[in-house]
Amino acid sequence: MKATQYYGKQTFRVLEKEIESPREGEVRIKVAYVGVCGTDVHIYHGMMDKRVNIPETIGHEMSGVIDALGSGVTGFSVGDKVVVRPLDDRKVKASDKGYNHICEELKFIGIDSEGAMQQYWNVPAFTLHKLKESTDLKLAALIEPLSVATHDVRRSALKAGETAVVLGGGPIGLLVAMVAKEVGAQVIISEINPKRIEKARALGFDVVSPVEVDLVEYVKGKTENRRADVVFEVAGVQPALDIMCEIAGIRGRIVMVAIHGEKKPVDLFKFFWKELSLIGARVYEKEDYEKSIELITANELPFEAMITDVQPLSNIQSVFENIDSNPDGLKVLMDCQL
Amino acid sequence: MKATQYYGKQTFRVLEKEIESPREGEVRIKVAYVGVCGTDVHIYHGMMDKRVNIPETIGHEMSGVIDALGSGVTGFSVGDKVVVRPLDDRKVKASDKGYNHICEELKFIGIDSEGAMQQYWNVPAFTLHKLKESTDLKLAALIEPLSVATHDVRRSALKAGETAVVLGGGPIGLLVAMVAKEVGAQVIISEINPKRIEKARALGFDVVSPVEVDLVEYVKGKTENRRADVVFEVAGVQPALDIMCEIAGIRGRIVMVAIHGEKKPVDLFKFFWKELSLIGARVYEKEDYEKSIELITANELPFEAMITDVQPLSNIQSVFENIDSNPDGLKVLMDCQL
Repeated sequence: MKATQYYGKQTFRVLEKEIESPREGEVRIKVAYVGVCGTDVHIYHGMMDKRVNIPETIGHEMSGVIDALGSGVTGFSVGDKVVVRPLDDRKVKASDKGYNHICEELKFIGIDSEGAMQQYWNVPAFTLHKLKESTDLKLAALIEPLSVATHDVRRSALKAGETAVVLGGGPIGLLVAMVAKEVGAQVIISEINPKRIEKARALGFDVVSPVEVDLVEYVKGKTENRRADVVFEVAGVQPALDIMCEIAGIRGRIVMVAIHGEKKPVDLFKFFWKELSLIGARVYEKEDYEKSIELITANELPFEAMITDVQPLSNIQSVFENIDSNPDGLKVLMDCQL
Repeated sequence: MKATQYYGKQTFRVLEKEIESPREGEVRIKVAYVGVCGTDVHIYHGMMDKRVNIPETIGHEMSGVIDALGSGVTGFSVGDKVVVRPLDDRKVKASDKGYNHICEELKFIGIDSEGAMQQYWNVPAFTLHKLKESTDLKLAALIEPLSVATHDVRRSALKAGETAVVLGGGPIGLLVAMVAKEVGAQVIISEINPKRIEKARALGFDVVSPVEVDLVEYVKGKTENRRADVVFEVAGVQPALDIMCEIAGIRGRIVMVAIHGEKKPVDLFKFFWKELSLIGARVYEKEDYEKSIELITANELPFEAMITDVQPLSNIQSVFENIDSNPDGLKVLMDCQL
């Protein structure tokens, strides 16, 4: 079979490997599609070389079909369409308080251990979610990033009739916006990249550029001065941190989706004054995957427009090079059987 | 009657004034005791001169007895012991979403309008909470700051068996610690002032100095590595902001009690990684006053030890001067009939 490996220094290689039998408790998946995550791009840029065991097959946004069952695996059959929830929580401890998805010794499959960017992939059966026979496997490769969004929205406790502002209209921002709209909220996206603005508008969203429009006044105008009930900070930049406290109304909830590697100035006075909440959100739980599978299966949201390119797995090097040179794209999938 | 006025430039004056009749909807209170709040000290230092209408009678932590009823006041009688919840929310708007206690046009009585540091005080009847005949009026002057604490603890959703760390062992920190302990939580206070450490220990609290002991290791040791379920940031200093994200465990809730006037660096990565929440908390709601009245009436917590000095109202100037020169004291009351 074909497998890819990240070798460090912005280099992937495609190699021939033996197809391995699944061990006890594992299944072998014939991988259909793998999406490229922002984290994969970080790995490609060498920013996670300390965490990744180079050379390593990476990738965790995937869909596929069960190809073989290891001993002791029940509840699944060869031929089942599946996705993997890539969280290995086998080292969970009492001090994790039952929050297994973010347990202290969590291993993220596809970063801390071998991932999906290969034709066949052996994974523990406990990571699997079964799909319907009718599910489109291209769309199914969006289930992992969509689950980030369903988790973020669930953490926010967003309700129908509330207003959510999404700061950042990249892939995760758009998925958060879709899920928020599906909840029944009024959704406003703030984005500065003109191509992304255009794309988000084409998807039917209310999009503003905060460098062209006074976002605070815009949100006030759309909410009878109530401002945002929920803000999703997906941009990861200081201006977003500054404005999130302005656009949130009284008792507003701000969900921290972006990863800020360094300490950043935050207007804590506004947290006091308006009794704001800042809510951290990381990966997803079982129910977030179930919600995402439901949404992908129903296929009533503009998921197809999220996929801006599909390339053969063997093109992996150029796929990552092109992502760098094309910041306007959304989700790139790789077809793992090509 | 005697009334006091803040005249600016760290100066109070005591003057003779006519006792006024209460207007429609108001009651006249014969003020028993007024506590000095940190905010009053800020006013004295001139830090709120833009907000206070100089010359102004300030003061909002009080207890007293109804002396006269204005027309239209029902539910109260002359002789009732009362406290005032000093929030004038008459300009509440729909955009305040029902959170009247922090409504955009809230007037804080005793800062934005005339306060309690006088012998008789006319206030709108809607601000009153009635006390039992048996309630000690000295302790009752603690109901307002205690309500800040009951509000903070309620915002945290602290439960019995959880561990709460209170950063800062001043008056509000100690009250938060008392309420947290009463909920059934394990409470640890972090404080650096040796006199305050001694005082908090005398009240039966587990107190550590983070300059002498590794607070993170201490909290881990007390929680089987779970770390804190809830952190109350009452200290208002950068080291507290730094350590709050360290000592909070997975899904820990951090309540922002302190007022940070400027943007401060915050470790947002920890919010993401451990799914922490930061919860802003300001003043109190009706139910927080009711809870505090219940606690003061029961008098089972060491409230008396909180009152470190009682002075005649006519000594107001020296009271404020002494607070500045004695950072070890806790709550100073003024007896308004002396």
